[in-house]
Amino acid sequence: MGKGITSRSEDYSQWYNDLVVKADLAEHSAVRGCMVIKPYGYAIWERMQAILDKRFKDTGHSNAYFPLFIPKSFFSKEASHVEGFATECAVVTHYRLKNDGEGNIVVDETAKLEEELIVRPTSETIIWNTYKGWIESYRDLPILVNQWANVVRWEMRTRLFLRTAEFLWQEGHTAHATREEAVEEAERMLEVYADFAEQTLAVPVIRGVKTENERFAGALETYCIEALMQDGKALQAGTSHFLGQNFAKAFDVKFTSKEGKLEHVWATSWGVSTRLMGALIMAHSDDQGLVLPPKLAPIQVVIVPIYKTEEEKANIDGFVRTLKSELEDMDISVKYDDRDTQRPGFKFAEWEMKGVPLRVAVGARDMQNGTVELARRDTQTKETVSQEGLAVIIENLLGIIQENIYHKALSFRDEHITEVNSYDEFKEVLEQKGGFLSCHWDGTVETEKRVKEETKATIRCIPLDVEEDAGVCIFTGKPSAKRVLFAKAY
Amino acid sequence: MGKGITSRSEDYSQWYNDLVVKADLAEHSAVRGCMVIKPYGYAIWERMQAILDKRFKDTGHSNAYFPLFIPKSFFSKEASHVEGFATECAVVTHYRLKNDGEGNIVVDETAKLEEELIVRPTSETIIWNTYKGWIESYRDLPILVNQWANVVRWEMRTRLFLRTAEFLWQEGHTAHATREEAVEEAERMLEVYADFAEQTLAVPVIRGVKTENERFAGALETYCIEALMQDGKALQAGTSHFLGQNFAKAFDVKFTSKEGKLEHVWATSWGVSTRLMGALIMAHSDDQGLVLPPKLAPIQVVIVPIYKTEEEKANIDGFVRTLKSELEDMDISVKYDDRDTQRPGFKFAEWEMKGVPLRVAVGARDMQNGTVELARRDTQTKETVSQEGLAVIIENLLGIIQENIYHKALSFRDEHITEVNSYDEFKEVLEQKGGFLSCHWDGTVETEKRVKEETKATIRCIPLDVEEDAGVCIFTGKPSAKRVLFAKAY
Repeated sequence: MGKGITSRSEDYSQWYNDLVVKADLAEHSAVRGCMVIKPYGYAIWERMQAILDKRFKDTGHSNAYFPLFIPKSFFSKEASHVEGFATECAVVTHYRLKNDGEGNIVVDETAKLEEELIVRPTSETIIWNTYKGWIESYRDLPILVNQWANVVRWEMRTRLFLRTAEFLWQEGHTAHATREEAVEEAERMLEVYADFAEQTLAVPVIRGVKTENERFAGALETYCIEALMQDGKALQAGTSHFLGQNFAKAFDVKFTSKEGKLEHVWATSWGVSTRLMGALIMAHSDDQGLVLPPKLAPIQVVIVPIYKTEEEKANIDGFVRTLKSELEDMDISVKYDDRDTQRPGFKFAEWEMKGVPLRVAVGARDMQNGTVELARRDTQTKETVSQEGLAVIIENLLGIIQENIYHKALSFRDEHITEVNSYDEFKEVLEQKGGFLSCHWDGTVETEKRVKEETKATIRCIPLDVEEDAGVCIFTGKPSAKRVLFAKAY
Repeated sequence: MGKGITSRSEDYSQWYNDLVVKADLAEHSAVRGCMVIKPYGYAIWERMQAILDKRFKDTGHSNAYFPLFIPKSFFSKEASHVEGFATECAVVTHYRLKNDGEGNIVVDETAKLEEELIVRPTSETIIWNTYKGWIESYRDLPILVNQWANVVRWEMRTRLFLRTAEFLWQEGHTAHATREEAVEEAERMLEVYADFAEQTLAVPVIRGVKTENERFAGALETYCIEALMQDGKALQAGTSHFLGQNFAKAFDVKFTSKEGKLEHVWATSWGVSTRLMGALIMAHSDDQGLVLPPKLAPIQVVIVPIYKTEEEKANIDGFVRTLKSELEDMDISVKYDDRDTQRPGFKFAEWEMKGVPLRVAVGARDMQNGTVELARRDTQTKETVSQEGLAVIIENLLGIIQENIYHKALSFRDEHITEVNSYDEFKEVLEQKGGFLSCHWDGTVETEKRVKEETKATIRCIPLDVEEDAGVCIFTGKPSAKRVLFAKAY
């Protein structure tokens, strides 16, 4: 530690890279495009997993596990899916290495697979091939299954958490008897994601649907949540797809309805990934390092003793022991950093970089006065408070910090939604201010693509809560029924 | 349901296969050697994960995540490791598919990797390559990291859970400043596994070390726990390896000691896998289906109502609601199976097949008498008990069931450890009775291999608690200092 990180204003992208490494979250591995998620970063991901997993189970889902590999031919079965996913992927062609006799390890050409296997980029195909065996009648429906897994999409330009060849995610895959039930499921899971983003990550999100052009390969409708980062770029934080009967038809999955008719099954899929780590970091952190909302912080409170003599230390130790156990009884995670190899200032900087929401410093004079110093990571403010009732003060403060981080991000996001009514205005706001541009669009893929080519902005979503509001497309002047949100995006 | 499964005496192997499928635990997938773990099976694995994960954290470990792929060249760096793992593996050679213009999806030959990537069969190499960047001084040690992951070992003959090409596991990888500390860690984790097997899985295990011939590729010592299945075959349920400085040397990982000297780091690795599911099934289950120890059962208590009228049903419902919430307050997982599409007998058979430890049946007459019928899965016994204080009775009974399942397995195991003193006796007991054969062995790989060739029995381990006891090798008559355990094994 000690060395700082690049500031956001100087180079936002470098700031992000510095922060991820300095806060011990992740690093690049020896394998191109693949990251190592370090223990501190993984602990945050584990908290996300635990909270999401509970929400999935509360909404009736169970976990299961499907194969890592998908036979190449499966990708040909759903026409649009193959184009979206089978192009950039890891292909397994052989199943053996051998020593060539000169000490080199080489691929054994006699061990070539008859059919190549693809490392899953997403699992719709292998799962629907499996569901075929699980579904006969309406009594077998719905199937509400989720999988926590690693997936691989061969990316040429990678960034830690945001875009990596291998990443961790969860993918829900559900099967239903009716269109209505499947749509309802896709919408329910979008709301689970949105609520998780706002309540847990403290990241406000816009709920919307993707345009045809940005839709998941194989979906009839892609619902999404879109967040805004501090540099004014949007980040897609989760998607939930209504897949219609596309995969059921591709894999011939039918059921006998209550009325005795044989029908194709309706499907959804939905996922969030370690990309959320990127959203979390970029939404809240500052030039001093990571800022973590308390609900996700592996360490919520760090206590640093300040002493000169062993006697002073022993006195502080006694106080901290009691405080720590009180806090732990309240399910607050606490670290007592009593390392004698580092000075308090070093420790302060380290925990600031790692985003611990609340720091408690206790010195010899505090012990005389019956006080401690509390330092909030989110506001960078300090105050001296009484040792009496401290655990409750801390518990309340963690709640306030969670709220504050959310409201700060919400204000920023709301200040960065700009209504624009001409293409000139569009380009000006995009360059000067960034953020979401709310404007009319003629509904064609062609216009969307032209705008993207000229400005790099894409339609992030058609918000779910937007009102009908007749107007004209800023690009073509053609009529438009409602506004959509454009932005540059990660 | 309804249809039974093959009995153990008829065909043990078929019994296992039937059971895994009928109890909804797992099934074969469309990908050769890869399984689908179904929701009920995965729920058991999740409980194993949760309990083990807590034990790892209680012993100071953190989770992290390392890449799925390992560059081919990494396998050449540790000489014995490559022979153990790089031979049968999934090799990624390309990173793109394309449409050949005639509607076929084919491998794009222009997208060939410069260096092939191996899907990890185990992660020592990629992890030690990473640790090199994490370790400079003794202050960076120990590193106590675990990973939950999928791994792939290309297997020609696969069996659900027991031997699959892809399987799920955890792999701990630790780095230490001294040999003593690393040995202590390897032994500590063996004990964590042994205790987990006995206390949670209710499977008694023998703690031992492997012979040189059976050691992990790259280890100086492999500690293991060995369990006994009902057919008299052994199953290795977990291993913990003292790796010495082999991987530190292969990946040039050194640290500056307190004394200022540059030294190679000492290592351990340890793992258990979804194979434990196989051990669990084969140790306890019977011809009626799965038998689950309560600590691992996703459903610990199932309640089945027996009624003729809606009024009777309503009366039972009221009673069950109270009981269920009392049990849930005690952290007991309960399912109220009030499906009106199935008869009680069907439900009884289904939950018996799925191994639910305790079944509560409540009929109209029970409601009049203030009783219920309790049926234990482990002993197949039923008793009528009072509704008063029922929750506490159930809680106690679950404890008794856990104990009973363990002791039954322990008696069986102990009855199947036979001291043998000649090769004839060895062969006879092996054929007639199976189990562990405790006998003298001359300590040579040659003898071990000859015995294996002739009898298919291998040395499962040299037990840790065995006493010195001079004797002569049953095969060569050469001197031996202590007995080892032979068995046929999964």
